[in-house]
Amino acid sequence: MAQQERALRTRRLIVEAAGAVFDEMGFAAATTNEIIDRSGVTRGALYFHFPSKEAIADAVVAAQDEALVPPERELRLQAAIDLTMSFGDRLRHDPVLRGAVRLAVEQASYRKPDASPYVSSHAVVLRLLREAEHHGELLPGVDPEEVTALIVGAFTGIQVLSQAINNRADLLGRVTVLWRYLLPGLAVPALLPRLNTAPEVRIAQ
Amino acid sequence: MAQQERALRTRRLIVEAAGAVFDEMGFAAATTNEIIDRSGVTRGALYFHFPSKEAIADAVVAAQDEALVPPERELRLQAAIDLTMSFGDRLRHDPVLRGAVRLAVEQASYRKPDASPYVSSHAVVLRLLREAEHHGELLPGVDPEEVTALIVGAFTGIQVLSQAINNRADLLGRVTVLWRYLLPGLAVPALLPRLNTAPEVRIAQ
Repeated sequence: MAQQERALRTRRLIVEAAGAVFDEMGFAAATTNEIIDRSGVTRGALYFHFPSKEAIADAVVAAQDEALVPPERELRLQAAIDLTMSFGDRLRHDPVLRGAVRLAVEQASYRKPDASPYVSSHAVVLRLLREAEHHGELLPGVDPEEVTALIVGAFTGIQVLSQAINNRADLLGRVTVLWRYLLPGLAVPALLPRLNTAPEVRIAQ
Repeated sequence: MAQQERALRTRRLIVEAAGAVFDEMGFAAATTNEIIDRSGVTRGALYFHFPSKEAIADAVVAAQDEALVPPERELRLQAAIDLTMSFGDRLRHDPVLRGAVRLAVEQASYRKPDASPYVSSHAVVLRLLREAEHHGELLPGVDPEEVTALIVGAFTGIQVLSQAINNRADLLGRVTVLWRYLLPGLAVPALLPRLNTAPEVRIAQ
């Protein structure tokens, strides 16, 4: 393995272990010792990649970008719906994404809170809604910017409740409810019967 | 002051100080010393009322019930809208409520998460939506139970983002956006022009 490749692999092992540790314990209770134990890397390797626990947390938060690739869909609103479904499904199974979301919601526990953990999701949803607007999918007067803020905020809280109540078992069902009640205020009526909001991960186009 | 009255006052001083401390620091970083300093009560008095930091946190979370009294309104949907506006406004100014909401969102930092911090808000909103249904305010097929879960979840996340981005300065505006896009999927069309979703606290009927 080339040196650079090995370094990338080590970094990934650290981020994966840290995601699980932050998901389970939150930032304050997590320790670099625990992250070292779980990742199997040396203390030297960890500090080579990350000068502090804060830096590891930032890398875990950034790792959510992987789950923010929208699927190709003819209808851009369907792409937005499907993105929330696949993100929600991954949140149920992927410890790094779970850790990232916990750190985002609890960011006051380790940094001065700002918009940064939400910048990527905001940008991806906004692009889809702007495209939906250009394609004539949105009702007149719908503002893609404010709807994006609504969807990112609502999704964030919905997954907080779903996690608290049943460890996210009902998360996709709750996302369905969000879209079912939101779409009549967003989409042109002719589209409503064509949009699929069922609580499932749709892979194919 | 009678003894019981004095005890109640001491308890309130502790909960008020603790709300501010939990709001600023989160559960993990908060200390009973800090709560004692800010409340001005003795350590003995604090432990007389609360055996642990967890017990103080539970009392702070319970204190949010005060902010969950719905206003009297002819239209029950207007009462629900106005409740979210007054709760949001109070969240901007009331340290105990801010502490309660932070503890609710971060409950994994001090207890096994469950629905308990959301039970009161769910019950209040559900009652309003059931009344709205009986009064013919809701579209056919609207399920008050799932809409309640949506509103409580969406509000929770919307305030998380508003807090992170501008310390809740734009919270009421974000709540307006929630209702503006949600109402077309909830309310019978004839009601839409009668419902006021402007970002303000409406006191009078």
